[in-house]
Amino acid sequence: MVPRKQKSIGVFDSGIGGLTVVRALMSRLPYENITYFGDTARVPYGNKSAEVVRQYSMEDTQFLIGQHVKMIVVACNTASAVALDALRTQFDIPIIGVIAPGAARAVRVTRHGRIGVIGTLATVASKSYPSEILARNKNLTVVSKACPLFVPLAEEGWSEHRIAQMVAEEYLVSLRKERIDTLILGCTHYPILRGVIQRVLGADVQLVDSGEAASEEVAALLAEKEMLNPSTVLPNHSFFVSDVPQRFRELGEIFLGTTQMRVTKVHIP
Amino acid sequence: MVPRKQKSIGVFDSGIGGLTVVRALMSRLPYENITYFGDTARVPYGNKSAEVVRQYSMEDTQFLIGQHVKMIVVACNTASAVALDALRTQFDIPIIGVIAPGAARAVRVTRHGRIGVIGTLATVASKSYPSEILARNKNLTVVSKACPLFVPLAEEGWSEHRIAQMVAEEYLVSLRKERIDTLILGCTHYPILRGVIQRVLGADVQLVDSGEAASEEVAALLAEKEMLNPSTVLPNHSFFVSDVPQRFRELGEIFLGTTQMRVTKVHIP
Repeated sequence: MVPRKQKSIGVFDSGIGGLTVVRALMSRLPYENITYFGDTARVPYGNKSAEVVRQYSMEDTQFLIGQHVKMIVVACNTASAVALDALRTQFDIPIIGVIAPGAARAVRVTRHGRIGVIGTLATVASKSYPSEILARNKNLTVVSKACPLFVPLAEEGWSEHRIAQMVAEEYLVSLRKERIDTLILGCTHYPILRGVIQRVLGADVQLVDSGEAASEEVAALLAEKEMLNPSTVLPNHSFFVSDVPQRFRELGEIFLGTTQMRVTKVHIP
Repeated sequence: MVPRKQKSIGVFDSGIGGLTVVRALMSRLPYENITYFGDTARVPYGNKSAEVVRQYSMEDTQFLIGQHVKMIVVACNTASAVALDALRTQFDIPIIGVIAPGAARAVRVTRHGRIGVIGTLATVASKSYPSEILARNKNLTVVSKACPLFVPLAEEGWSEHRIAQMVAEEYLVSLRKERIDTLILGCTHYPILRGVIQRVLGADVQLVDSGEAASEEVAALLAEKEMLNPSTVLPNHSFFVSDVPQRFRELGEIFLGTTQMRVTKVHIP
């Protein structure tokens, strides 16, 4: 039997966007084994109801627990927003989402107390970010905006295209008018568009990547529970998906920065 | 028991895009009852593998047969492209897809024999339109292009926005260079963008809406099999979905031209 410390960190996402969170984890915790599940047969979650996202998230978590992970990271913002409480009630394993870490970091870095949040329709409708932010400091102002076109723009590889610039201007104009000083990238795809978002908002606005913030929290949790992997050999990274679409390898290149993934297709639920 | 002629036409789609096909059917066959199923819990199909799309299409068809329809229209281009043969093998009921009717109409209307096809990644990768077109006339030239951003543009209601214009120019430039004279709108969402597509390609290019072409074929098939509904009272239109997302009514307005739908959520499979 594998000792608990050497077990994998389990990460799930609606599809491949969560690979940006894996990338942050690899960078922050280079000796941890990681087991990833992307629900590519049912992607995306961001345009679905809370009820359906909760059901899918239960099934994703169940799969990772079956892979004997030591903890779960809910990389998907939409799933974190609407399913985290249900998952924690249902499963007896440490579970970290991306909303609370992203909100906490934004509260820490804001200078004038005006925070913007961008995400999918479902994440924005859930009001999870505003509620996590205001629970930490009720005097802050939070302005949210759903940006559905950002996901296909990232997947097309158009992150530096003038169309990305125009779409970003269209979506972010209301946030700029609200004079936000901090913006939470509340969807795993959005770090791919970090450059254009920063240009449109100006260098004064601090961008918060929820996946990066979650990696810090994962490191803290593992340290606190004495579950950090003591190994100093190269770790194992396993990738499971519920479907292998045509462009999977290209998308791996965009999101993880490599096409060298061992990918296994599994049937879910 | 309902007499066969009075039974519904069953229509399924990956989500709500198929409502443009329902609209065409309502206009062509105003006295037919229609039962629609939109797989909104798993939408879209266009970025998934052929295998997964076939499995979902089987389940969608099974659901409609359970609703006692007299025939099935596969409104989704992706499902028509990769699942139609499997469905016809599996089920003993007339089934019409949108690919063959769209291809046949394009072959009929082309003046110089240069046909363009736009659709999802999966539809384009399947090469179904070129194969249906060349089977009818092997001297024609077919040029295809996947246009993933058209779907979220239609759903954002940005069909007349300058961003839609720029995206259309980006996607259609290669087809314009190939001097196509006819373009098949090979995705149920694309008729929403008909205006901007026509402007970018110029008035000389004939647009073919596969959903409209399929409605003609449905009318012909029902007439031939003596299955047309003889009723002249207002028909019943029932809508079933596997999930009811937040913006469902807004999208109904965009795609069907009305929010007055009786919608029932069902669990699939």
